Amino acid sequence: MTEPYDPQNIFAKILRGEIPSHKVFEDDTALVMMDLFPQSRGHTLIVPKAPSRNLLDADAATLGRVMPLVQRVAQAVQAALSPSGIRIAQFNEAAAGQTVFHLHFHVIPIYQGEQLGRHGGGKAEAEELEDLAGQIRTQMSANSSQ
Amino acid sequence: MTEPYDPQNIFAKILRGEIPSHKVFEDDTALVMMDLFPQSRGHTLIVPKAPSRNLLDADAATLGRVMPLVQRVAQAVQAALSPSGIRIAQFNEAAAGQTVFHLHFHVIPIYQGEQLGRHGGGKAEAEELEDLAGQIRTQMSANSSQ
Repeated sequence: MTEPYDPQNIFAKILRGEIPSHKVFEDDTALVMMDLFPQSRGHTLIVPKAPSRNLLDADAATLGRVMPLVQRVAQAVQAALSPSGIRIAQFNEAAAGQTVFHLHFHVIPIYQGEQLGRHGGGKAEAEELEDLAGQIRTQMSANSSQ
Repeated sequence: MTEPYDPQNIFAKILRGEIPSHKVFEDDTALVMMDLFPQSRGHTLIVPKAPSRNLLDADAATLGRVMPLVQRVAQAVQAALSPSGIRIAQFNEAAAGQTVFHLHFHVIPIYQGEQLGRHGGGKAEAEELEDLAGQIRTQMSANSSQ
């Protein structure tokens, strides 16, 4: 059913350093970066380094390490941007909204009274994304040194 | 910012056995059950047993154990119901769509050409939920014995 992993997907290229990203954080497990087509201000992605198409073919041990990082990112987004809420989303296959076929988790801040943008609806300004990445990074550092 | 955990929420009552559920699976880490107000056929919830309001105040070690279980559930839903895709979602605070304030993860099958129902839009028939729980349970057992 599931198609094989394609190492030429854009996130694999970012992980290999062939394409730049607005990086928030990186460790042995994952890269954290700003979504280029954010659904809201501060929309952040956690991209595990281990290759898998999505959740269905992922390594279970990797998932166990990634989820606490997703939490750290959500906590940092909350501290940095004070949204009214946060959605965590992970899409499997195109019918579910997956557009890049390398496993990733979305951290999507929700601001009361503001509509979510359609994913891929508009590309954000690089300068704004760098600024947001810096704010979230600062909070991740602050939290980890508590 | 975040309100304290309320042990009288409905999932806490289900975990304590005070309210029944359409159970798929249970271990020391979490309870897996059918959503009573499914957004699609096979909408399943993974409810960690450790008390936390949502992801932001959850225990990181619990998250590390829960995510491989979310994967097992998604794989079983895929095997049992063959949806076109699967969405994983986790909502933090009412503004983000959280309705029960005990951490839980949604596994939402997506069927090509079918619209997702609004969450809470309609209660499913108990008989259908029991049947779906049985199908997903069977696949979880089959996968774990491979």
